[in-house]
Amino acid sequence: MGADPTAIVVGLGLPADVGTAWLDDLTAGFRDECDLVGAGVAGGDTTRCDLVVISVTALGDLGGRAPVTRSGARPGDVVAVAGRLGHAAAGLALLESGREGLPGPADRRTDGRAEPYGSDELGEDGVAGLVGAHRRPRPPYPCGPQAAALGATAMLDVSDGLLQDLGHVAAASGVGIALDPGAFAVTPEMERVARLLAADPLDWVLTGGEDHALAATFPAEVRLPPAWTVVGRVTDGEGVQVGGRSVERGGWDHFRM
Amino acid sequence: MGADPTAIVVGLGLPADVGTAWLDDLTAGFRDECDLVGAGVAGGDTTRCDLVVISVTALGDLGGRAPVTRSGARPGDVVAVAGRLGHAAAGLALLESGREGLPGPADRRTDGRAEPYGSDELGEDGVAGLVGAHRRPRPPYPCGPQAAALGATAMLDVSDGLLQDLGHVAAASGVGIALDPGAFAVTPEMERVARLLAADPLDWVLTGGEDHALAATFPAEVRLPPAWTVVGRVTDGEGVQVGGRSVERGGWDHFRM
Repeated sequence: MGADPTAIVVGLGLPADVGTAWLDDLTAGFRDECDLVGAGVAGGDTTRCDLVVISVTALGDLGGRAPVTRSGARPGDVVAVAGRLGHAAAGLALLESGREGLPGPADRRTDGRAEPYGSDELGEDGVAGLVGAHRRPRPPYPCGPQAAALGATAMLDVSDGLLQDLGHVAAASGVGIALDPGAFAVTPEMERVARLLAADPLDWVLTGGEDHALAATFPAEVRLPPAWTVVGRVTDGEGVQVGGRSVERGGWDHFRM
Repeated sequence: MGADPTAIVVGLGLPADVGTAWLDDLTAGFRDECDLVGAGVAGGDTTRCDLVVISVTALGDLGGRAPVTRSGARPGDVVAVAGRLGHAAAGLALLESGREGLPGPADRRTDGRAEPYGSDELGEDGVAGLVGAHRRPRPPYPCGPQAAALGATAMLDVSDGLLQDLGHVAAASGVGIALDPGAFAVTPEMERVARLLAADPLDWVLTGGEDHALAATFPAEVRLPPAWTVVGRVTDGEGVQVGGRSVERGGWDHFRM
């Protein structure tokens, strides 16, 4: 919505046998992530639970600005995304295939354990970087307030997959959204993993949600900074189209709305 | 802390087989409780979980005032409480004894099921009212901002039991707190249930936390409204005393810090 992050409130439900080392790691992870945006951990309740439950409420300050909601997209606007799309989905597919150790130019083997914050040291660009993208998402935090300042007409974070989330924007705004499948970044590593797993990398890009990218609509005349990639247009009509085929009508073969 | 409630954010983890009727009841409960203070339900995440998990973050607006924390109590202040103390603990003791149906002047039998919001219709004053106090706490919401406006020097809600929570105030403020055991309200119903269960009703008052009362310290010259009952004084020294006996040193027989 374009707010500057200020604090998170963390509610914890923990089994009695969770160790202090694990809890220290969790606390350090929250602190590290909050430090990226200058936010603090403002408290939260703790209770005993049979499962580990972690419930986070994130608070931000709009500084008096109006929130950027899902309902302001207008025909003629451009649709743009910031952050990675499909990397986490590719990483999850690798993990589920049991082939996440696939050697690559910038990769080292990971055993999949004791690495709660991903695999930075394995290189962002390698195949293992895809697994790291799943394990530790890197939301493009500054792009939210940036988009608001640029005059974004609608915005949301992509957590259910781009097609589904843009479907929310289309419905709330009473517009259609037409995406250009050639506009999305698919890295060589994603191509390579997709071949290995007999998958379509565009599936991951359009339906994966765990990268926590941002999607926004802007008036066509706005000059977008490099962090934003234009991937489509807002149209009259309704629903989301990819390359001219309507998603709801089965036009996107691999995706089930 | 003296803020006016504005909104709650509700995070839900739900098993797949939770019915919509149950969810409607839950939603109605949140709405009813928020209506008491003019707050709204501002959203929250929903996810599938093996357990029912309900995580609530409550937000308030201080309107520019400083928060009333635990650390401002000064020797000479009075200690006062608002809301019920010990009712919920008595109700829980009744439930655990299996005798919650105990007939009484204002009571009707309850089967203990399908009554998620307590037993208002059984009468606030009856024995079943104690069970209702456990099932549906009635925090004295308006007393928080009221206390802040009156100049409360420290305040917290009583959720761990009065002795323990006032211990937090004493420690954070660097003071002692002396309570008058004769100052607390013990109703005839609590006396009656205590006799039945061979319990001490003052135990429930001093150590029960589920009533969600408020405790605060005020400068001695403040004229307190009827909702507040003075139950002690802030002193030099440290820790909490009841009737001159120090709680930490076993002075309070039935309570384990």
